[in-house]
Parts: sequence; C-alpha cells; structure tokens
Amino acid sequence: MKTKYEEYVKVMRKAADISGAISLLSWDKEVNMPKNGAAFRSQQVATLAGMRHEMLLDARHGINLKMLYSDRNLLDSKERKNIEISHKHHERRSKLSTDFVMRQSKAVSNAYHSWIEAKKNKDYSLYKDALTEVVNIRKEECELVGYEDHPYEALLDQYEPGAKVAQLDTLFNDVKAQLVDFCKQIAAQKQVNADVLAQAYDKDKQWDFGLEILKRMGYDFNSGRQDLSPHPFTTHFAPTDVRVTTRIDENHFGSMTWSCIHEGGHALYELGLPQEEYGLPSGSSVSLGIHESQSRLWENNVGRSLPFWKHNFSLLKEFFPKELKGISVEDFYKAINQVYPSPIRVESDELYYHFHIMIRYEIEKGLIEGSLSTDGLNEVWNQKYKDYLGIDIQNDAEGILQDIHWAYGSIGYFPTYSLGSFYAAQFFNQAKKDIPNLIQEIEKGENQSLLTWLREQVHQHGSTYSADELCNRITGESLNFKYFMDYAKEKYKGIYQF
Amino acid sequence: MKTKYEEYVKVMRKAADISGAISLLSWDKEVNMPKNGAAFRSQQVATLAGMRHEMLLDARHGINLKMLYSDRNLLDSKERKNIEISHKHHERRSKLSTDFVMRQSKAVSNAYHSWIEAKKNKDYSLYKDALTEVVNIRKEECELVGYEDHPYEALLDQYEPGAKVAQLDTLFNDVKAQLVDFCKQIAAQKQVNADVLAQAYDKDKQWDFGLEILKRMGYDFNSGRQDLSPHPFTTHFAPTDVRVTTRIDENHFGSMTWSCIHEGGHALYELGLPQEEYGLPSGSSVSLGIHESQSRLWENNVGRSLPFWKHNFSLLKEFFPKELKGISVEDFYKAINQVYPSPIRVESDELYYHFHIMIRYEIEKGLIEGSLSTDGLNEVWNQKYKDYLGIDIQNDAEGILQDIHWAYGSIGYFPTYSLGSFYAAQFFNQAKKDIPNLIQEIEKGENQSLLTWLREQVHQHGSTYSADELCNRITGESLNFKYFMDYAKEKYKGIYQF
Repeated sequence: MKTKYEEYVKVMRKAADISGAISLLSWDKEVNMPKNGAAFRSQQVATLAGMRHEMLLDARHGINLKMLYSDRNLLDSKERKNIEISHKHHERRSKLSTDFVMRQSKAVSNAYHSWIEAKKNKDYSLYKDALTEVVNIRKEECELVGYEDHPYEALLDQYEPGAKVAQLDTLFNDVKAQLVDFCKQIAAQKQVNADVLAQAYDKDKQWDFGLEILKRMGYDFNSGRQDLSPHPFTTHFAPTDVRVTTRIDENHFGSMTWSCIHEGGHALYELGLPQEEYGLPSGSSVSLGIHESQSRLWENNVGRSLPFWKHNFSLLKEFFPKELKGISVEDFYKAINQVYPSPIRVESDELYYHFHIMIRYEIEKGLIEGSLSTDGLNEVWNQKYKDYLGIDIQNDAEGILQDIHWAYGSIGYFPTYSLGSFYAAQFFNQAKKDIPNLIQEIEKGENQSLLTWLREQVHQHGSTYSADELCNRITGESLNFKYFMDYAKEKYKGIYQF
Repeated sequence: MKTKYEEYVKVMRKAADISGAISLLSWDKEVNMPKNGAAFRSQQVATLAGMRHEMLLDARHGINLKMLYSDRNLLDSKERKNIEISHKHHERRSKLSTDFVMRQSKAVSNAYHSWIEAKKNKDYSLYKDALTEVVNIRKEECELVGYEDHPYEALLDQYEPGAKVAQLDTLFNDVKAQLVDFCKQIAAQKQVNADVLAQAYDKDKQWDFGLEILKRMGYDFNSGRQDLSPHPFTTHFAPTDVRVTTRIDENHFGSMTWSCIHEGGHALYELGLPQEEYGLPSGSSVSLGIHESQSRLWENNVGRSLPFWKHNFSLLKEFFPKELKGISVEDFYKAINQVYPSPIRVESDELYYHFHIMIRYEIEKGLIEGSLSTDGLNEVWNQKYKDYLGIDIQNDAEGILQDIHWAYGSIGYFPTYSLGSFYAAQFFNQAKKDIPNLIQEIEKGENQSLLTWLREQVHQHGSTYSADELCNRITGESLNFKYFMDYAKEKYKGIYQF
C-alpha cells in the first residue's frame, strides 16, 4: 500500500513538473516572447500537454490508482482525499477519447480566431458558427462525463468541484432579489465625485507604487516577481515561484493598483499551499471560487476599504503629490468606490459586477441545457443588459464579444467569479470576529494577522477539504449570500449616505 | 521508407519541443527566477531531460532508426546525413546505462557545489576530490562509448564531432611555435594607451548602445530579445526565438559591448538555421567550434576592427560625449585592442586567449589519458601560466578554479573556443575575397552582404556538412592556423607599429 501510494506520488510530481514548464512557456508568451516565436511556442505547449496527458492516462498509473481507490480506507485521511480526487480526475479523463480531445482542441482554436475577427469587426455573426461548435462539443462532453442533476454541472465541476446548479440558482436569485434593488437605491442618491481618478498618473511611479503595495500585503519577492502583460494574471511554476503580472494605463490609475492587489491575493494563496504536498491535490488550490475569494478579499474587502487607505494613502501621495493635492483619504475612498452600471464586466464596480456574471451564467446554462441557442444570442445578451443594468449595448464588441472565455471553451467558469466575492465577504466577516483588532491593524498597515489567518484557515489545506467543507469549517455554515449583502449595505450606505 | 522517415522526424521534433522548454527553464533561471525557485526548477529540468532521454531511447524509435540506417542509401543526401548523425547519437546514448547517467549526474552535482565552496575559499584542496570523481567518470565514459585513437576524442566528439587529438596537437603546436613568439614581439613595442576604457560608463546608456549595435548587426528583435544575466549567453527556444543576454559593468564598458556582439554572432547563426529542418541535425548547429566561429568573427574580426568603429564610433560618442571627448576612432581602436597577459581567460585579449585554452587542453588531455593526476594540479596550472604567459598566479581562485566548465563535467569543451577563432579567421579571409567591397561596406555600417554570405556558406547547412567539410567547401582547405596568424600579424603590427 505504501509503495503504491509512493508510486502514485511520483507520477503526480512528474506531471506537476511538466505543468510548471507549461506555465512558464505560457507566462513567457505573455510577458517576454518576441512575436515570431508564437507558432513554435504553441506547438511546444501542445507537445508537453500531450505528454502529461499520456503520463496520467498510462495504464500502469491507472491500475495503481484503481487499487489505491479500492483500498482507500487503509490510507490516512489526507492520502485518502488525494486518491479520491485523483481517481475522479482519472475517471473523467478516461471518458474522453483522443479523437474527442482533438476535435475539442480544433473547435476552440477556430473559435479563438473567429472571436478575434468578430470583435475587431464588432459583428457577432462572424463568431456565431464557431461558438455553436464550441457549445456542441461541450454539450457532448457533458454527456460523455456524465452528471447528476443538470448537464451544466459536468462543466462547472471542472472549475468548482461539487458545485450544483440548484445552489447557483439560489445565489443568483438572491442577487436579483436584493442587489438589483440596492443598486437602484444607490443610483437615487447624490453621486460621489470621482474626478481625482480622471487624471494622468505617471506609469513608472504607478509601477513602483504597485510593487510597494505587494510588499505591504506580504508578497515575498524571493518567491515571485511582477511583470507587465496585456492582461493581468497570476501563475505558478513551483510552490516557491509564484508570479503576478499587471498592466499600466496612464489614464486609469485604478486598473494597475487593484490588479496588483487582486493578483497579489491569488499569489498569496498559491504561496501558502503546503510545499511538501507539491503535485498532489493536498498541495493544490481547491476551486476557482476559493481562489477568487482570496483575490477578491484583498482587492475589495481590504484594498477598497477606508482602513487600508488610511495607511497607504500617504504613500500614494508621496508618489503623486500634485495629482492628489487637497484630496482627503475619505474623498479618495469614495471616488474609488463609485457605483454605476457599465457595459464592460472588467470595468465594473464590485456590486454591478455580479449582474455581469448572472447574465453570463443564465446564458451558459441555457445554451448547455438547450433552452437557448446561439442564433440571435447577441440580442438575448443586449436585452439582459437592458433588464438588469438598464444599459443599451451599442455593438457586439461591447456586448457578447467582450470576453474571451467562451472562445477558449471555458463554459462554466464565470460563476466562480461571483462565488469568489461571496466567499470573500463571508470569510472576511469571520476574520473580523477571529481577529478582534483586524480593522485597526489594517489601518496601521499590519497585514500579518490576516495573512496568517488566511493561511491557517484556507491556504494550508489545499484540496483536502472541498470548498463547501472549508466554508463550513471556517464560518460554521455553507456559502450564504447574506454576508455579501451585509458587507455591501454597510459599506455603500456609508459612502452614499442613506 | 517514407513513413519510417516521417516517424523519425516526428520523434525528433517532439524531443526538440522538450529541449525548447528546458532551454526556457534554464534561461529564466538566469534571467528572472526568484531565488527560492531554484530547487524545484532543477527538479523540473531533470524531469524533462529524463523524458527526452526516454523518448529518444524508446525501443520503437531505436528500431526505426536502425532500419533507416541500414537502408540509408535509399534516402536523399540530407535525409541520409540526418539518419547517420541521429544513429551515431543513439549508439552513444545506448551505451550509457541509467545507473551510469545517474552516477555522472551526482558527480557533477557534487563537483559544482565543491567548486563554489573552493572558489570562495580560494582553495583547490576543497575541490580536488570532487574533480577526481568527475575525471574518473568521464574516463569511464570514454571506455563505454569507445574511441579510435585517443580516449579524449570520445569526449571531444560531443562538442566538436569528428575532431581528433592529432589535429588539435598540430594546432596548439602552431600556437606555441608562432603565437608565443609574436606576443613577445608585441610586448617589446611601445604600449598602447587604453586610459579611455578606464572610466565609468553609465549603465543605461551602455544598455541602449548594446541594443543598437545588435540591430546594426542584423539581429531581429522580432525573433529574439536581450536581457541581463550574471554570465552572457545565447539560447534558443525555437528557430524563431533566439535570445541573448549580457551583463553591464559600469567600469568595464568593453565587457558589455563585446559580449553583445559575441552573443549576437551566436544568435545570427541560430536564426540562420533552416526553420523547416526544426529538430533535425540539418536544422541544428554543426559543432561548438563552428558556433564559436560565428561569435568570434563578429566579435573580433568585425567588432574589434577599425572599419567597424569608423562607422559606429559616432554613435558611441553620442551616448558618451564627455567620456570620449578628444578621442579619435584610431585611439579608440588601439585601446580596445591592447595586448597583455592576464591570469583570467575571460578577460584576455584575442591573442593571449589561446594560451589559456592551450593550458586547459593540455591538462584535460593529460587527465583523461592518465599522464596527469588531480594531485597538485593547481601547481601544474600555475607552472603553465608561468611558462606560457609569464604570469605568477596569486591563488587558486584566479588559477585553476576560475572556470566552471570541469565542475559541470564539460571536459573536451575548451578547445572549441580556439577552433572558433581559427575558423573565424579563415572564413573572414575568404569572405573578403568573395565580397570585394566587404571592408568598405563595414565602414559604411552595411553588414548585410556579410550576413548573407555567412547564411549561405555556414548557417543554412545546419549539420548537413561536418565542420571539416564545411571548411573545405568554403575555403578550399581544412582548418589552417596560418589564417589566424596572418590576421593577427596584419592587425597587431599595424596597432603596435613594427
């Protein structure tokens, strides 16, 4: 049994080594690669991904895993959980033939190129057929891998293991019932003045400020670094090499600042996973929702809070004395929390954001269950923006074509963004109870207790507990939208004074 | 036959994809990696190298290669050469057991750490045992893989395929007979004034100047980039992504400039290899000696020549008007070509350089054939420096511990540096005949004819011709030290006026 488990660990670690190399090839592509390198780079990534796939589907590894799974009660609890998760992944992988994987990869590649063309031309019709292909192959995948209650769950499970459509329906019904109304109340108040953000902020100074904020959060530059890329992201090549990227827009100071904090939150999670569990589920993040809870907690609950800026605003003023002359930290705090509906998800404030996700969730689910078709889907999209955000979408580029996710084949991914914010609110509420002086510490720039709490409560467990188990262990209950609404009401009633 | 060859190509290209990933992991380690990433990085490189090794030693590939080799006369000439080379590599690889490879890897790893420790303490005795291990295992390798005339050739062949001890002996006898004497003549002349180099040159400006020089050489930044690293090197991840690194020392302007040009020469070779032969010998450099001929030709024959600086000195003056005030291009040319013996190889001028290599060659060969032992080898080293360069070595750090090569297990590598310079002189002599206005073009900053000539004569052939075949095709004879001596005499008699 011990030898079998060790054999399993060996294969998993080799696969993780390959994953680290793939992540580096991908990071380099975004950060450094000269443009002519693209074609060979894609081929190299495909080769390594193919080798990892073969290694994990190798008959000997499969048999070993099956035997370990049969005898899993002889393992200790952490080992058992690893075997259960790896067995589940193996089952899913085994159900997808090489032919299917190749057809899917082709459909996605087509969709990606059609999406680029369509977005450039602001014309959904150039993308529709390719999107249909992607939807059809993802539907086929649902049937191949199987599901309990709803086919969409077969996709969702890849990103948020164990999540259910019924649970998401409840959450988004709460969003509709409570958040729509609350945003209307905000819209009826006197609006905040955000002129301070509508200025040019020197790029080099932004960069230096971002690095300093990452350091203040507790991000260790001996185990990571920040670089520039067109879209910010976090990646890891090893438990001790977790990197973030950002982008800098002179005219959108906030774009850099909160991407630093957001990606920093992701990175702190990866850096807090137990090193000795490298390559195993127990050393890997549990779900995208929990991952996003870590980025959102830092970005919103901490990074857009008044206590955080009470400490950090003086540093910002050192960098930008002219731009921030006469601005109080309270003025700044209000400006960075302006709430208003935008057609673009990534430019949204933290409240309207969830309408964007709800719309995508409704559409995805409809496409997979067959209640919606890709015909006229741009019109469906626009109508929902009108209904939920009161916005008229001007063209497909700022409408259905704004996100790349579906073109990448990522259907079932979007809901994890909202789950992240909701988990963040619930966790942060608990952290305030567990760390009595938390807010005062944040005001003093002391983030260590919070980071330690997150490491103990979330990071160190890897996937040993499911997202739901983790939430129950930490907060005593499953995910509950109430905490997000409480957070939102307290914060925004203060800002908008009602 | 066609299917068999295609199958062979497929395996070779997959192996090249893995090599590209390994090169990126290694490049990133030198250029970007946060320090805590080191341990996992080594493990990842080892995993990928192991997978490549297994793939190339896979039974099916081996049988396929054997069959292709038997029937190689049915292939066209380029295919035949590919099969011959790959078959030779496969034979060598097959003779080394996994146990041997692991012992070697362990010996090298030990030696590396001992070398670091010994160098820090300037004490050869801390390194001696580990070096003995490396020498012994490399001797064992010679016996395992076999050789024709001299065991050292079994090692040399890895870096300079087909090279013979007899040939190297002749070359270094020429060095001893002609270059020692010539350097003595130079030492007897009035020395040049190199004060212009003994100033601080702003690092950022050095960096910008280096990039501009690379562009002027014809290096395409759409297929490469330059970064900083502790030791300059060139690497390629794909035929369309070939990168160089440099280092900048404020007080050694030349260190950056000629490393840019040197690495740029290596990079132009890699970028000139035929893309469509990716992963095959026909798409790979033929030998380290020929590779080095490309870097040295640009670095020395072009980059330390008066015509080159007649064009580029005005640019340098734009960057450093204060530092170069009142300095003529002729003054500058003399300063950068100052000849004097140094204990350190990498700080040597282009003449004394070959004494450094000769000493290493004599010692390596002696160790492998058994005429020298590691006992008291530092004394042997110091005596040779006294004899050939007239220098007293102060301590082991500036003596036998200065180079990392042996600690990496690279025995048989050093001679390729001298071969590179000698090939460069012979090739450049021919280029001047083939391109009647070459020198005038270089004076005008037009490097295109030279680059085209190198591409046609050297780069495009990959390994289709051996180094010796290539030399004969280009110059009508095998490597001949005469061309280097002619070049040296003409240049340095001019500079030292005798």
